[in-house]
Amino acid sequence: MSAGFQIWASDGVPEVTTGDDLAAIVASACPDLADGDVVVVASKIVSKAEGRVVAADDREDAITAETVRVVATRERPGGPPLRIVENRLGLVMAAAGVDASNTPEGTVLLLPLDPDASAARLRVGLRALLGVRVGVVVTDTAGRVWRDGLVDLAIGAAGVRVVEDERGRRDSAGRELGMTVRAVADEIAAAADLAKGKVTGRPVAIVRGLGHLVTDDDGPGARVLPRLGADDLFAEGTAEAYARGLADGRAVARAGDADAPS
Amino acid sequence: MSAGFQIWASDGVPEVTTGDDLAAIVASACPDLADGDVVVVASKIVSKAEGRVVAADDREDAITAETVRVVATRERPGGPPLRIVENRLGLVMAAAGVDASNTPEGTVLLLPLDPDASAARLRVGLRALLGVRVGVVVTDTAGRVWRDGLVDLAIGAAGVRVVEDERGRRDSAGRELGMTVRAVADEIAAAADLAKGKVTGRPVAIVRGLGHLVTDDDGPGARVLPRLGADDLFAEGTAEAYARGLADGRAVARAGDADAPS
Repeated sequence: MSAGFQIWASDGVPEVTTGDDLAAIVASACPDLADGDVVVVASKIVSKAEGRVVAADDREDAITAETVRVVATRERPGGPPLRIVENRLGLVMAAAGVDASNTPEGTVLLLPLDPDASAARLRVGLRALLGVRVGVVVTDTAGRVWRDGLVDLAIGAAGVRVVEDERGRRDSAGRELGMTVRAVADEIAAAADLAKGKVTGRPVAIVRGLGHLVTDDDGPGARVLPRLGADDLFAEGTAEAYARGLADGRAVARAGDADAPS
Repeated sequence: MSAGFQIWASDGVPEVTTGDDLAAIVASACPDLADGDVVVVASKIVSKAEGRVVAADDREDAITAETVRVVATRERPGGPPLRIVENRLGLVMAAAGVDASNTPEGTVLLLPLDPDASAARLRVGLRALLGVRVGVVVTDTAGRVWRDGLVDLAIGAAGVRVVEDERGRRDSAGRELGMTVRAVADEIAAAADLAKGKVTGRPVAIVRGLGHLVTDDDGPGARVLPRLGADDLFAEGTAEAYARGLADGRAVARAGDADAPS
């Protein structure tokens, strides 16, 4: 058996509010942190510490404000439409990542302004307080296309590999592994969710045994994970793309007919 | 700190070939399996044991044969087009899940015919050989829309919860958690990938400490995870849907013009 790794969640994280020192909170809750550990923190408490709780009588208005591009919408009986949008962080998510749970009535929680920077600050703070060299992953919860259920993924990272590029390495038969690039930060986020839970209110997990993924510098951050633009074959929902085609087709046909010799 | 969980990969799994008894192989490689463990097995060795290595001079033909529906295609310079398709298992994947690595030249590896049944057989076999009550997850590697890099996900499962439905449970403020359904089997697959690696050829991982997710019966299996049909807002790639709309728009306009009073 190889050494493997362990993940556990901290029971000692109190309710976080605006202005709280997240590094002090994590250091206090996880005094046994060691070099090579990865600290996985739910974006919820990062946002709270950073004062991203904003008054919003209407969550829908807050979603609109966070949206930079609408990808797909779907009417839902008895409620506001589902909106899958790209937000300011380049994340394509339902409701733009705006969270109306776990905050007082009349407020919503926005994602951190720069989760990679948040992760880097936490890493520096933990080094200062505990003298440890750790990686930090900031997570959020999202749905997936074609798959039921939500999983956690990495929206911020510092001091930890975000992708492992296996291209050029060879399989057991000596052939190149092809296009294999692993999103290890997302896999760490998913693994940590199994330990953290959600209902139980444990927003911090520690991963021990993946020290080979922990780096000296902050690295590129989770901002490299979104794949948009020319590489995105699903930049628009099927219904939206079809409707745009339909409108263009009509216009083209009419213009063509108008141009045609009579 | 809560108890958390551990994951490790087995070093003792030999090369698997058609007809091998997978339960005997896993039992031999992991003799310390205990009640409540989850055994995570790469579909690659399940396919090999089940004889899913097939002769295919052309991987593209094999992909076509496994495809039940084309979702999106994209030309690639210097190679065959990228094809994102739904396969026989309801999985939407690039190349239909057909694997041309880790097999002899001139052959490809198809996914197991029924990975949930494969998982159930392995579970029964491990109970018979070791007297343990474990869960089994069969994994494959896939890309994601809007995210760079690949992650492992669950394509087969037995004796382990596949989704955790948190609907009706309440957050720390007493409010319902809303639509939260967690794809825990996918999170287990992702976590195990961090231990298993790929290049290192360790296709079996053990998860210990998530016994609350292990069930007495086989359960619904990973077949419940694909979300297709009316709930799928991305049933067609943007370019494909737009092209279909464009053609329909032209036809509609011409028919409308023909019908219009002159």
